[in-house]
Amino acid sequence: MANEYDLVVLGGGTAGYVSAIRASQLGMKVAIVEKEKLGGTCLHKGCIPTKSLLKSAEVFSYIKQAAKYGIQAQTPAYDFKDIRNRKDEVVAKMYGGVQHLMKANHIDVYSGTGRILGPSIFSPQAGTVSVENSSGESELLVNKHVLICTGSTPRELPFLPFDHKTVLSSDDMMTLETLPKSMAIVGGGVIGLEFASLLADLEVEVTVIEAGSSIIPAEEKKISRILQKELEKKGIKFLTGESLSAETIVQDEQGITFTLSEVVNAEQVLVAIGRRPNSDDIGLNNTKIKATNGFIEVNEFYQTEDKHIYAVGDVIGNLQLAHVATKEGVIAVEHMNDAAPITLDYDTVPKCIYTNPEVASIGMTEAAAKDAGFDTVTKAVPFAAIGKAVINGDTSGQAILIKDKKSDEVLGLSMIGPNVTEIINEVALAKFMNASTLELGLTVHAHPSVSEVLMELGLAGEGRAIHI
Amino acid sequence: MANEYDLVVLGGGTAGYVSAIRASQLGMKVAIVEKEKLGGTCLHKGCIPTKSLLKSAEVFSYIKQAAKYGIQAQTPAYDFKDIRNRKDEVVAKMYGGVQHLMKANHIDVYSGTGRILGPSIFSPQAGTVSVENSSGESELLVNKHVLICTGSTPRELPFLPFDHKTVLSSDDMMTLETLPKSMAIVGGGVIGLEFASLLADLEVEVTVIEAGSSIIPAEEKKISRILQKELEKKGIKFLTGESLSAETIVQDEQGITFTLSEVVNAEQVLVAIGRRPNSDDIGLNNTKIKATNGFIEVNEFYQTEDKHIYAVGDVIGNLQLAHVATKEGVIAVEHMNDAAPITLDYDTVPKCIYTNPEVASIGMTEAAAKDAGFDTVTKAVPFAAIGKAVINGDTSGQAILIKDKKSDEVLGLSMIGPNVTEIINEVALAKFMNASTLELGLTVHAHPSVSEVLMELGLAGEGRAIHI
Repeated sequence: MANEYDLVVLGGGTAGYVSAIRASQLGMKVAIVEKEKLGGTCLHKGCIPTKSLLKSAEVFSYIKQAAKYGIQAQTPAYDFKDIRNRKDEVVAKMYGGVQHLMKANHIDVYSGTGRILGPSIFSPQAGTVSVENSSGESELLVNKHVLICTGSTPRELPFLPFDHKTVLSSDDMMTLETLPKSMAIVGGGVIGLEFASLLADLEVEVTVIEAGSSIIPAEEKKISRILQKELEKKGIKFLTGESLSAETIVQDEQGITFTLSEVVNAEQVLVAIGRRPNSDDIGLNNTKIKATNGFIEVNEFYQTEDKHIYAVGDVIGNLQLAHVATKEGVIAVEHMNDAAPITLDYDTVPKCIYTNPEVASIGMTEAAAKDAGFDTVTKAVPFAAIGKAVINGDTSGQAILIKDKKSDEVLGLSMIGPNVTEIINEVALAKFMNASTLELGLTVHAHPSVSEVLMELGLAGEGRAIHI
Repeated sequence: MANEYDLVVLGGGTAGYVSAIRASQLGMKVAIVEKEKLGGTCLHKGCIPTKSLLKSAEVFSYIKQAAKYGIQAQTPAYDFKDIRNRKDEVVAKMYGGVQHLMKANHIDVYSGTGRILGPSIFSPQAGTVSVENSSGESELLVNKHVLICTGSTPRELPFLPFDHKTVLSSDDMMTLETLPKSMAIVGGGVIGLEFASLLADLEVEVTVIEAGSSIIPAEEKKISRILQKELEKKGIKFLTGESLSAETIVQDEQGITFTLSEVVNAEQVLVAIGRRPNSDDIGLNNTKIKATNGFIEVNEFYQTEDKHIYAVGDVIGNLQLAHVATKEGVIAVEHMNDAAPITLDYDTVPKCIYTNPEVASIGMTEAAAKDAGFDTVTKAVPFAAIGKAVINGDTSGQAILIKDKKSDEVLGLSMIGPNVTEIINEVALAKFMNASTLELGLTVHAHPSVSEVLMELGLAGEGRAIHI
């Protein structure tokens, strides 16, 4: 006996459940197939739990710096179990919310592994989804549309496979019972640095090993340099331009040793070198869907080669961010319903790094803009010129604007400093609304607020900054 | 011997110095006359120092709540002198910045009291400014334009005049040596409540006495209720609908006693019932300028009845906010230069209350919109639905959208919760750009961020919220 749906969503992560809700709003009968937990990586292993850990680290760090604000505090302490429990509570609260939303939107949730089948008696085209539950029983979900959002998994180094004890993935970080005294982190990208920042704030000795010549290579060079300097102030050590291989690594009872330009000893190592798409075991071979290195190929509305099957999120690999995945999913679902959605301009998408200090950016770096043939103008405003940043005691950062000399268009905006993962959203609106630097500069911003940096940057773009 | 300027700015507060810089950018020769310190109330007695005190109170409060984030901390302590010193350092740093800006922009600063003179041999029209310094010597500043931005001063109760020891103004709060054990605050407006919040966080026993039926009456009713509840959780006591008079007040050695619906004893009282314009002693009688209750009358470009004399900021009394005053000043200066500035729509101006939790709003309340004849639609999103708010441990607030049923225009947006004094700036841009609720809802917001509440509210305005 087969169940019939307008849409079967393969993968109940953030993209999956949000798309399912949107589909339900549009009148579709929707099922989600999820083999672990609704909310996926973002809710259980990514965005949410890491930010909860970072929040605890921030509070710990505030207490250590209390004297700077005129407050007397004893040296704080922590039992990592408490921080982890707090993280688990945050996740549990939001997980409850997602489960409630599924009921409220009449979405059927199937627990199990979903695979796409080829043409059959139920359907002349590939797409029927078979769900196999943990007892090995199967159900068939016949449908008009499939949305694949099966996400991604931490990538491992062939010569340093995860053993989940000494060699850890970011997933393993979520279930640590205690923190080690020292940790090496392979990879100076977003995930590696967020963990580096939080571990260092919690007084773990951290060494970041990066193969490239600088950390966060996709970000503005100057921002990368400031971030490294700020993280070094916390005691984090950086080794860049390093070639890791089996020969450079020795594991023993005490932990792990890397023999590189320097010798690095650590109790554990977190390997954070990127994420691979979860597209192996979902039945793509039964379809016309094409994939490159596992990333599913789609058009601007996220249709695969099987036009009724869509794919979004980490499994297509554009920008592996939860808010990108949900946006792609909503566009896909609206396209299924002939709703003519606006396609996503990836240059309007905020990219955040929740280190302490935070980094956030939108659009192109100066180098990328130049590579793309633009004649660029670059303006920078230091946070030292912004009252609220002085008040917060956080003035080492800056905001950088890249604009096209010819058209005055804002090509990119990058920031490192206090609260920038919030204020970048104003830039997202500005980009979406096609606001000029003048419009950004003429908008009345609350005084004092960190966001005044955007007004100042907008005015700087017009050659009429006030405070620099 | 008279000095000649294109523009003389009367009052070197935030509006004054920013307007002077803008005028200098436009090629004007500019002088500022200031009788106290450049930066004025905002820098020395208002926005900046209060937010510095609030920051210290926030850190203190974080330490007390550390366990909530899994951190072990001893009960913190403070010596108020340290908090005040930190505040003084923040102010000194920014004061240095303003002084530097004056030099960098070739603006002459005159220390002394400026008064506008009537027609004379130097000028056929009123406007020459006489500056009297502390030694009683005078200089004349002949000019083409005058910008009056003399600001405002705390208003006192006739039957409870400031004695600067027991009966305090907000100015006096800046120079307190120690905090009292208990303080009464007369006035449940922005200034009174910011002090109430910070004092309560620093464990002073606070009672707020308000004549009206509710606190912050200009804000959304629901927000006012939530704020009162949150402040009550800190131990602040509220007496509303109270009639103060000489008969209800007794002062003695121990402090002050109010006999109202309840008897309130306090060591000191802060009277925060508003601010009166500084327009008494600036020579208005020598001009055609009109004033009502001391507030100078101006047109939409801030011209007074003497068209070459402009007035902006608290002394005209529109919205007594630093960012309004600076905006008005820049518009005035551009108008003097025939630069056709866009006039200020006060419904695009963010209004912030830096209590803990914070309040921020733009545009009309539901009640005001109804009074103005709109058929309104109201949507609310609780912060409990927003992941970053759950992570921050701050979910009691909400965001409320008021829109016009007919035109779909956003009439107002009000929030109480974490970081809302930052994220309101995105709403300011949205209002300035005339963004629809759909555009707000379609903008990709970083996940997780508190600002996602605006996206959700935008979608709610379209009947397609995801998380509520």
